[in-house]
This record gives sequence, C-alpha cells and structure tokens, in this order.
Amino acid sequence: MFKFEGANILSVNQFDRESIEYLFRIADVMQPYAHRQKQTRVLDGAILGNLFFEPSTRTRVSFGTAFNLLGGHVRETTGLSSSALAKGESLYDTARVLSSYSDVIAMRHPDSGSVAEFAEGSRVPVINGGDGANEHPTQALLDLYTIQKEQHAHQAGIDGMHIAMIGDLKHGRTVHSLCKLLCLYQNIKLTLISPKELAMPDYIIDAVNNAGHECVVTEQLEGHLDADIVYQTRIQQERFATEAEANLYRGKFRLNQAIYTQHCKSNTVIMHPLPRDSRADANELDNDLNLNPNLAIFRQADNGVLVRMALFATTLGVQDIVQKYEAPVRWFSNKTDTVN
Amino acid sequence: MFKFEGANILSVNQFDRESIEYLFRIADVMQPYAHRQKQTRVLDGAILGNLFFEPSTRTRVSFGTAFNLLGGHVRETTGLSSSALAKGESLYDTARVLSSYSDVIAMRHPDSGSVAEFAEGSRVPVINGGDGANEHPTQALLDLYTIQKEQHAHQAGIDGMHIAMIGDLKHGRTVHSLCKLLCLYQNIKLTLISPKELAMPDYIIDAVNNAGHECVVTEQLEGHLDADIVYQTRIQQERFATEAEANLYRGKFRLNQAIYTQHCKSNTVIMHPLPRDSRADANELDNDLNLNPNLAIFRQADNGVLVRMALFATTLGVQDIVQKYEAPVRWFSNKTDTVN
Amino acid sequence: MFKFEGANILSVNQFDRESIEYLFRIADVMQPYAHRQKQTRVLDGAILGNLFFEPSTRTRVSFGTAFNLLGGHVRETTGLSSSALAKGESLYDTARVLSSYSDVIAMRHPDSGSVAEFAEGSRVPVINGGDGANEHPTQALLDLYTIQKEQHAHQAGIDGMHIAMIGDLKHGRTVHSLCKLLCLYQNIKLTLISPKELAMPDYIIDAVNNAGHECVVTEQLEGHLDADIVYQTRIQQERFATEAEANLYRGKFRLNQAIYTQHCKSNTVIMHPLPRDSRADANELDNDLNLNPNLAIFRQADNGVLVRMALFATTLGVQDIVQKYEAPVRWFSNKTDTVN
Repeated sequence: MFKFEGANILSVNQFDRESIEYLFRIADVMQPYAHRQKQTRVLDGAILGNLFFEPSTRTRVSFGTAFNLLGGHVRETTGLSSSALAKGESLYDTARVLSSYSDVIAMRHPDSGSVAEFAEGSRVPVINGGDGANEHPTQALLDLYTIQKEQHAHQAGIDGMHIAMIGDLKHGRTVHSLCKLLCLYQNIKLTLISPKELAMPDYIIDAVNNAGHECVVTEQLEGHLDADIVYQTRIQQERFATEAEANLYRGKFRLNQAIYTQHCKSNTVIMHPLPRDSRADANELDNDLNLNPNLAIFRQADNGVLVRMALFATTLGVQDIVQKYEAPVRWFSNKTDTVN
Repeated sequence: MFKFEGANILSVNQFDRESIEYLFRIADVMQPYAHRQKQTRVLDGAILGNLFFEPSTRTRVSFGTAFNLLGGHVRETTGLSSSALAKGESLYDTARVLSSYSDVIAMRHPDSGSVAEFAEGSRVPVINGGDGANEHPTQALLDLYTIQKEQHAHQAGIDGMHIAMIGDLKHGRTVHSLCKLLCLYQNIKLTLISPKELAMPDYIIDAVNNAGHECVVTEQLEGHLDADIVYQTRIQQERFATEAEANLYRGKFRLNQAIYTQHCKSNTVIMHPLPRDSRADANELDNDLNLNPNLAIFRQADNGVLVRMALFATTLGVQDIVQKYEAPVRWFSNKTDTVN
Repeated sequence: MFKFEGANILSVNQFDRESIEYLFRIADVMQPYAHRQKQTRVLDGAILGNLFFEPSTRTRVSFGTAFNLLGGHVRETTGLSSSALAKGESLYDTARVLSSYSDVIAMRHPDSGSVAEFAEGSRVPVINGGDGANEHPTQALLDLYTIQKEQHAHQAGIDGMHIAMIGDLKHGRTVHSLCKLLCLYQNIKLTLISPKELAMPDYIIDAVNNAGHECVVTEQLEGHLDADIVYQTRIQQERFATEAEANLYRGKFRLNQAIYTQHCKSNTVIMHPLPRDSRADANELDNDLNLNPNLAIFRQADNGVLVRMALFATTLGVQDIVQKYEAPVRWFSNKTDTVN
C-alpha cells in the first residue's frame, strides 16, 4: 500500500485501490468532526502552508477548513504577483524557504508540473491543489469518494456501476483524473456524452478499455442518462468560435428536472465539480433540480473537506489518534441535520 | 425577544429594544477579554468564514479579531474577482458550499440584498458586514452601544438624550440605520445638520417623528452643537459637481477644538464612523481634537469588537459559558490603561 | 540593556551588543519549537496583527509562522488599496484602531518612516517588517544571528571575523543595517565588493572605520573571497541605463562552485538575503552551489523564524515561560534532519 506518512500527494497515479479504500475509511472517520457532532484537536499546534499562487476560493477554503477542523493553524498565501516567484526566484528556492514555515503544504499553481517541482525542494509533505491543466488529485479523490458514498446509500459499490459524464470532456482535468481512478475498479460502464469537438481524449478511452470497462461515446443525452451517476461539467464558451455556437452546444447538454424525470433512473445521482454556471446562457444544471434529493453536488463539496482532512491526517501520520484528542462541540450547530 | 441562537443578523429592523439591551449586556461581558484582562477559549475549535467580497480592512479585522478573542479559527476570503461568483455561480450555490466550511459567517458584498440572498443558502448563521447601500447592522449596533456607554458615563441613558448628526446624511447608511435604532427609544432630540442637497431622507425623518422624537433640520453648525452626542460623518467629494463646491461645503461642516469650545457643551461626546479623512481639503474632525477626552471615535471602534463578540456568542449560543472557559493573559498588555 | 517588554522594534539603532546577545540567546531557545522537536502554547489566545501594506510573501509568512509557533492567532492584512489609508486616513488613526484588534503588530509599508509614525498611535508593540528604503531590522538581526551561528559552528565568534559583501551595496538596506550592527563588535575585516556606481555609502564606511574595523573597498571578486562569510546581494537591472550594461556588471559579480573552489576558503559560508534571482541573466548565486554545505542561505531564512519568535516573546514578556507551556509534536516531522 501507498505509504502516506511524509509523502507528497501529487497525482492520482500514485494510488492503488487498497490505498484509496484506506484513505476513504479515514475520510469516514472525519465525518463527525466536519459535521460538528464533535471536534478534535489532534493537530493543535501544527501549521498548514496554504499556497494558492492561482486563486480558487472553494478549494483554498476547503483545505484551510480541513486543517482547522483537525485543530491546526493555517498560514495563507494567495496570488502570484505578490510572490518572490515574480522576482525570478526558482520554485526550488521558494519551496526550501516556505516549507520551513509549516508542517505540510497545500499548493495550487497555474503551471503544469510546478507543484511536483516545488515538492522537490520542500522539507514537508506537499499536496497538489491543482497545477494548471495537469492534475487536481484531491478533486478526483473527492469525486470518487462521493460516488462510493452515494452507491453505498443504494447498497451498491463502485464495481459494476454505470456512470455517464457530460460536457467538455476534452479539457476537463476533473473527468480525466476520475477516469484514471475508475480504472482501479472492475466492470464499470462509462458513457461519455459530449460534442465531437470536446470528446474525451483517446488515451483516456484506451485506459478505460484496457481496464476491462465498457465505454460508450455519444453526442446525445437522450437514451444515455439511465446511469447510477450522471457527472455534469461546464462547457466553456471560449472553446468555440462564436457565442452562438457555444450556446447551441450548451443548449444540447443542459440538465433540468424535466429531462431528469424523462431520461434518468428514479435514483440517478447527479454530480458536478462546481461551480455550476447559473447564468441563463449556460445553466448546465438547472436550479429546479435543487429540490431533487439525488442532486449530490453539495454533498460532493462537503466530501472535499473529509477527503482533505484524511489526506492531512495520513500524510502527517495522526489518523489513528484523531479520536484521542476529541472534545465536545459547545456551540450551536444544525449541520448534522442538513449536510446529507 | 429576538432569538439569537442560530439566527442570521441581516438588518437593524430585526431588533426590538429588549433584544438590543440583552445584546449590549453580553457586549459588556466581553470587555475584559477584549481589553486583555483575561482570555476565553469558549469557541476553541469553531471556525468563522470571514467573507469580504468587498474590501474593508477595519470591519474585516474587527470580525476576525472578535472571533479569535472567543478562541476560534478564522478562514478569510477577500475580493470578488478571485471568487466563483465571477464564474457565474449563484449566491445560493456559493452559500451552500462555503457554509459547510465554517460554523458562522460574516459577509460583506457590494450589492444590496446580496447577504440576505446568501443567507437563504447558508447552513450556518450569517452576519451582515455591509451589503452595498443597504445595511451595515453591526456598525449601527456599535454606534448605539457607544452612545449608551458614553451616556452611562455621564449617569444618563439613551432615552431623553440629544444627538446631532452632521455631514452627508442623504447617502450615509450609518446614520440611517442609527436613526432606525433610536426609534426604539423615547423622547430623543435629533438635530440633523447638512447641506440641503445631502439632507436626511424624508422616510427616516418620518420614522423619527412617528417615534415621538423631536427632529430639527438645519444647515448651520452654529447654535446646534449643544448636544450630548455629535455624530460627524464624511462629505464625499464625488457627491458634488466640482471640487470647489465640495470644499465649500466641507469647510462649513468641519469640527475642531475651537468650534467645540465655542459651540458644544463641556461634555459633548464626538463620534464618527471612521475612517476620518485627514487630508487638508476634507479634515472633518481636526487632529487637535485628539487630546479632547470627549472624542469617542477610538472607543467607538473598540466597541465594534465587543458588539461583534456578543453577536458571535449569541448566534452560536455560548453567551452564558464564556467565563467557564476563561484563562489568564500571560503576556504583556497595557490595553486596560489606554482603551478607555 | 534595551527593555524589550512593551517596546517597539523600529530600527537596528535601538540595540546595543548586550541586548542583541540576549535576544540571540532567546532565539536559541526557540529552535526546538521551530524545528518541530516540541511545540509551545505560551501565546495561546494572543493575536498578531500582521499588516503588510506592501506585499512580501516570505517576510509576512515568517512573522505569521513565528507567532503560530508560539501558539497565537494571526490576523492578516495585505496591500494598500484595500485599506482606509487610501481614503485619507492618517497612519495615527489607522494605528489607534488596528492596534485595538491585536496584542502585537508586525508591519511593512512602502514609505520610509511610516512604521515609526504608526507606532506613535499604536497601543501595542510594533515590529518593523520593512519601511521602504529606510529599515528592515528583523532582516539585519537574522543576518547577524546567522553569522554568529555559522561562526560558532567553526568555534569562532563575530569579533575578529572577515566578511565580504558583494553586489549593489549602495541601495541594499540589508547590508547597510548589517554594517551598523557589526559596529557593535570588535576587530572585523569588511571587504566591500561592488561596481563603483553601486558602492557602499560613505557614511556607512565611516561608521565602520570609527568602530575600529578594517574596511577594504574593491571592484574585484578575485583575491577578496577568502572571508569567513561572503554575503551576496542582487544587482538590480533598473539601476543601470541599459540591460546590456546591467548584464556586464552582473557577469562580474556572480558566484558559482568553480569560483568558490578557486577563490574562497574551504569553509567560507555564503549568505544572501533572498530571493536570489535564478534567471539566466542574473543568477547571482548559481544552483551548483546548492550541494555546498557552506551555502547558508536556507539556514538564514530558517533563522528568521527564530529571531522573530524571540522578538515576539521578548516584546510580550513571555521569554522565560516558553518551556512551561510545552507539548509534544504528535505529527510526522523530519525537519530536525534537514533544517541544519
């Protein structure tokens, strides 16, 4: 199994199935702390360096919150311009210096490979929070963790499931990484729904096929949504020559309650990496789905905190003593009612 | 009485007199912690989401400090561009996601009504830190709390007092909200001093009259400053056609020690929402007042921390156990000498 | 001796030798906490106001981390535009208000003298984190602390040592302040290597001579690098008329392993205030020196945390009870292996 303690988390390629299942068991342990039934101070005194050289509110705050929920301090840096990188400092130097200021680092950077390069100079574990078009492993892990939890809620597992992915499958690093992780499982049916111009890259489809999975590629929503999970993504306007062309495609791949009722199973779960674009000309997941209990997009975001807590706990080697430093939540909280 | 626990604090309209008096008693309880005679860890482990989608150093830091003084962690977001809102995410979605990252949220946003809209999606209490031209309830509460404290120092109360407000009374959301709160009290004399073009809106004056208060409207400082409280505000240049016109008005409504000596009572207290513009062509409160013990503007800013501590404690329902988690202050502090 | 408790730290001129040696002994005490052999919660509940009105990732994070390592909270402000200063507020007013939000302040500001002006209005100790071209005392202190530690590693002290400074000695506030501190010691040989246009100012050379030190001024690296410490700095392009001219100079003052082998002693220690510019046309310290154990630039950055911890502990008067609030480090850390 992957040795988490002291390790960098740079890519989904680092994991085998056993490691992922272990990590997800730790994420389960984190739930009562994140949902405010209890608190833990296991990392009281530890410091996270939360380095977001590219802005991202939700991912940045999710990492910071995950560390606070374990009891630790967070030192944050946002933006590239205010950084020594802008004065010609190498990532190696930046890493040598900043890693002496914390016990673990979460890092996002606009350049592919930059987080791995940074990790070379770091003296503490580095968790990749997204390095440009390359990888965003914690998103892939939280997606897979959500799939597992939603399947478990229906007395099923990941093996043998049917997942449909919709939208810009060419550029979405989220769906690429998720497909890689799904290759660790068995007998999955994967339906890839996108305009031809935004189709899933061949190397991903090859990997899926090599894993023994069934792979259906189509440009039609209709007849392809009877999946266990429908994973919707954004179709970004800048991929198209004109706004009119973009809107044509977006119109074809939208989901709303009427389409859900007509084409999905009664318990098809809807996921989305967020943010969903709610402007009228995009609107890939209509707000009328908000009342649908199978809309899992906010549970998915919540799960991000659990997975990041699990990654911090395992890379810092405290996953077995979390409960030992437990304390009651003394303040008002109704999260247990509403999170799930 | 208003039920604070679990509530959103969006508007001064939510409060009745009893609720405000209750809140101010809790603010009094907070004083030894804010003034560093003691510390409390009652919210140790809790997380504040401090969301300032519009910048504001003093209000942002005041909220963050108030939460730290109760023992909690602060996760902060500043600016609009770096946020998913800029990618077309609805406030509802942002709220659903970000509220899973904290136990309570303080939020400022440039758009009127945005904080209330956010609160609809939030799973945790939301405190309005200013939503554009609409409301800034914690400022109004800290102003009223300051008035009460200053009156108490002179063995008086809010009922029956005389307050003069000066400056841009048309656009100042601070003075509007304060007038609304004063309507909960009795027999107040209100003197409204401003250029005609920047006069207090009629609906506020109507409310004040309906509350049975006496209301004097004037363009003259002279003869109108013998109040218990003089509340000065900024006259902003952009309200006028030319800089020359702006300076003409500003010249008329300035306060300094000479004017104070000639026109105020010997114990008239001076307030200002801050920041005061100290540039020569504005200078609405001259620095020569800094030695005047009745200049309450810094006590007013201090009181903001107490009121925000009280709001956090009451919305999270820990107001009765603050003292139970007390600890000594082990480090050097001379705040007790200088704050008042 | 300088009375640290409650004091502002604004300038290197405040210190005498005894005070510095005392401060450095406290910095030594901090090492096991910074290197994660132990943790201390001596400042649990205290709040640092980390005010960086001018951006600086490494200095800002170093201050914040130092405070977290002592157990305290950090409230941070970055940038000038988002601040009330931009609305015409005086530094005095800003200080009066913001200092009520914390127990100690670290502050950087682009204007010379601004931190001292701020300190006039502050109710809590203010530590200068750099005020424009004026002073950056914590950098000078960490440089001197590094020199002392490196000398001690060779069974030597600061008295009687030989230090060579290279680069832009005219504009570098770092080297100016360091020279002032070295004047507190005895019998030092100082070699100042720079293009004539960027020579050390006469008033610094005079001070060094008046302290009884030997001072050699030269434009040549060759024959002048057999020092105990070689302190390299950046030659900034904007100091020269053309890029070509800048590159000519930079080429002359670069250090790499070949030059080290040929011209330095076998144990000459290399320092640099960081960031070093690793771009090909600058490259003042080549990466091939990274394997040289006498390259002390990262130890130097680490020492910044120790010195800042010592300054917080002494100004807040807790330096003698740090060990009393000790706790074990429960999480994975291999810093003890790699930091030195």
